[in-house]
Amino acid sequence: MKLSAEPTCPGLCLLVRGVDSEHSREPKALFAVSLQVNALRNDEFRDPRIVARRSLVFPKETSTSYVEMIPQKPLNLKAFTLCFRVATELKGEREVILFAYRTPGFDELNVWRELDGRLGLYMSGAGVLFDLPQISAMESHVCLTWESITGATTFYIDGKKSLTKIYGKNHTVRAGGKVIIGQDPDNFVGDFDAKQSFVGEINRIHMWDIVLWPNSLQDLFSGKRTLIAKVFDWETTEIKVHGDVQVIDDEL
Amino acid sequence: MKLSAEPTCPGLCLLVRGVDSEHSREPKALFAVSLQVNALRNDEFRDPRIVARRSLVFPKETSTSYVEMIPQKPLNLKAFTLCFRVATELKGEREVILFAYRTPGFDELNVWRELDGRLGLYMSGAGVLFDLPQISAMESHVCLTWESITGATTFYIDGKKSLTKIYGKNHTVRAGGKVIIGQDPDNFVGDFDAKQSFVGEINRIHMWDIVLWPNSLQDLFSGKRTLIAKVFDWETTEIKVHGDVQVIDDEL
Amino acid sequence: MKLSAEPTCPGLCLLVRGVDSEHSREPKALFAVSLQVNALRNDEFRDPRIVARRSLVFPKETSTSYVEMIPQKPLNLKAFTLCFRVATELKGEREVILFAYRTPGFDELNVWRELDGRLGLYMSGAGVLFDLPQISAMESHVCLTWESITGATTFYIDGKKSLTKIYGKNHTVRAGGKVIIGQDPDNFVGDFDAKQSFVGEINRIHMWDIVLWPNSLQDLFSGKRTLIAKVFDWETTEIKVHGDVQVIDDEL
Repeated sequence: MKLSAEPTCPGLCLLVRGVDSEHSREPKALFAVSLQVNALRNDEFRDPRIVARRSLVFPKETSTSYVEMIPQKPLNLKAFTLCFRVATELKGEREVILFAYRTPGFDELNVWRELDGRLGLYMSGAGVLFDLPQISAMESHVCLTWESITGATTFYIDGKKSLTKIYGKNHTVRAGGKVIIGQDPDNFVGDFDAKQSFVGEINRIHMWDIVLWPNSLQDLFSGKRTLIAKVFDWETTEIKVHGDVQVIDDEL
Repeated sequence: MKLSAEPTCPGLCLLVRGVDSEHSREPKALFAVSLQVNALRNDEFRDPRIVARRSLVFPKETSTSYVEMIPQKPLNLKAFTLCFRVATELKGEREVILFAYRTPGFDELNVWRELDGRLGLYMSGAGVLFDLPQISAMESHVCLTWESITGATTFYIDGKKSLTKIYGKNHTVRAGGKVIIGQDPDNFVGDFDAKQSFVGEINRIHMWDIVLWPNSLQDLFSGKRTLIAKVFDWETTEIKVHGDVQVIDDEL
Repeated sequence: MKLSAEPTCPGLCLLVRGVDSEHSREPKALFAVSLQVNALRNDEFRDPRIVARRSLVFPKETSTSYVEMIPQKPLNLKAFTLCFRVATELKGEREVILFAYRTPGFDELNVWRELDGRLGLYMSGAGVLFDLPQISAMESHVCLTWESITGATTFYIDGKKSLTKIYGKNHTVRAGGKVIIGQDPDNFVGDFDAKQSFVGEINRIHMWDIVLWPNSLQDLFSGKRTLIAKVFDWETTEIKVHGDVQVIDDEL
C-alpha cells in the first residue's frame, strides 16, 4: 500500500488540510498534514505506467530477425537484475534464446529456455538451470538476479521468488559486447540458428547493475513504480530492429 | 494494514488527538497528529523488514551438511507454531527432511516432505500426513500449528489454511534435544542419510510456543509485522553451520 | 481496507470534518476527527472477528458421526444464500455430503460433492450440477444462492462468482425438517452411508433467506463484516454433536 499526498495518488491518500479562515484573526492554515512518498520527488524512481510503451513481436521462426539493444551503461557487472515479460507458443523439445549478451570471445550472459523447459543462465561457460513454472502463450514476468560476491542466483516468476542457487561466485561480466534479442549469436553477432530463435512476444526488458529486492520485483510485476534501470531501461533504451520483428504498442 | 486509534494497535496507527484548549486563549496546537508504528516500541512486535536477513542454501545432496539452530527457549511444548519459507527442486519419490528436533531417545518433532509429496508431522512415533499444494522451486511459505489440548493440527501454505486434523492429543514435546535443518538425525545428531537430506533454500524459520491465529500467519506470509517468536526467532537465533551450506542475504 | 470520509462507509472509517468557524473568533474545535466502525452501531451488521469461533473436524469415515444444526427461523424459503468453509482430502470417485436438509418426506435441500468432483444442489428431486474449482485439503469458501422467482442458482468459490444456472423456478423449500452436517439421511435422520459421509473440516455455516449480493459474498470470504444470517448464524446457532466430531476453535 502506498500513502501519498498527491491529488492523483494511485494508492491510499491521506489528505488533511487546514481550512482557510480568511475572516479570522487566527492563523490562516492551522493544519497542513501530509504524508508523502518521497520517492515521487526522486529522479531514481518512475511511474511504470509511463515506462512500458513498446513490445516486440517475432511472428515466425527465422535465422535473420533480431533486435539489438544499445546499453545505457557498459556491462562490466559484479551483479545484475534482468527482467522481461515474455510469451511464446514454442513448446516441446525446443531451445529458445531469451537474452544474449556476447563479446567477441564469449557468450557473456545468455538466458535460455532449455530443451526440457527449464530456464538457464550461462556466463562464459557452463550454466545453471532452474525448474520453474513453464513459459507459455500467457505472458510471464521473468526476473533474474545475480551477485558475484556470493554467487547467489535467483529467478522471479510473476513476482514470486524461486530458490537461490550458487553460481558464478567471484565472476565478472565483461563490457564491450552486444545485446541481442531473438537470436543466439554463435559469433560476434552472426551464425544464427533458426531452431534456437525466439518466436512470440517480449517486452519490458530492464537491466540493473545491482540486485533489486524481492519487494521491488513484486512491485515491478504488479505494475507499480520501481527503480529506473541503469543498464537497460525499456522506455528509453535505443533499439535496432533487423528483419521481421513487429514493434507494437504495449499500453497498460 | 490495520488503521486504528487504539493505543495498542498492532499495525500502522494513525493517532489523532484533540488538545483541551478551553483554558487557553491562543492554543498553540489544537491537535496533535501523529503517525506511529507502535509495534516498534513494543517488544512483542517487530517490523519484519528487519526480521529476515539470512537465508540458507543447500547446493547439493550430502550426508554431512546441516545447520543447527540454538533454541531461545526450551522445547517442552504443549502447543507450537512452526513457520519457514522453502524452495526445492527435489521431486518424484524422494523423502525430504524439512525440520528435525531430536532428543537422545526420540524424534520429538520432525516435518517431512514424504515420498508421495505430502507433508507430514511426526512427534515421537506415527505421524500425520496432509495432502497439500506441492513444495517446488518457487518459494512456499509453510506454517504448521498444533495444540496438545485438542490435538488440532493445521498447515498454512502461503497464508492459506488447510483442513485441521486431530493428532497428538494430550502429548507434550520434550526439551533437551537439538534442532537440525538439512539432515534427519537417526541418532542424537548423526547417522545422516543423503537420500533424505534437504537440497534447496530455506529461511525465516520461526517457532512459537503458542498457536498463532490465521490472520497472523497470513500477515507473516505477506511480510507484515508479527509476534516475535519465542522459541526460534529467525533474526536473532544463533545457528551453527556444518559442511557446504551457503548463508546468503534475504532482503525483502 | 477502505478509507473513506463518507458517512455511510461500510468498513473502518476515518471521518475528518471541518467546522464552520467564520463567525467565531475562538473556535473550540476546528476539526472533529473521529474514527468509527459504523457497523457496530447497526444491529444488522457484525464484526466477523466475533462471528466465527468454532470449527467442526470429522476425523474419519463413519456412518454415525454428524452434527445437527437447529434453525433460528423455519426453512420455508423462496430464496436463500448458503455459505460455509470446507476442506477435505477425499478425492477420486467419492460422493461427499456437504449440507443436508430433510423433511420426513423429502431431501429438501442437499449440497453434494459429486463422484466426478462437481458441486450439486438438490431440492426435492433432480439436481443442478456445477463444474467448479475442486474442494481440497486447503480451505475453500463456498457460497450458493438461489431464488424461486427466476430460478437463478449461482455458486461463489472464494468470493468468485460462477456462471448462473436456472433451477427450481417457482419452487418453495418446505419447513419442518432437520439440517444435518456430516451424513446424508436417506430417512428422517437415519440410514446413513459411510461412503457418502463427510471427512475433513467444515465451519462458518451461514444461511440467509435472501440472495446476498456478490460484494457481500466477497466480503464474507475476505473476513469482513457482513449481514447477520437469519436462518443459521454460525456464531449463535445451536448445534448437537453426535459421534466422533471434534469441535475446535476457529480464531481469525
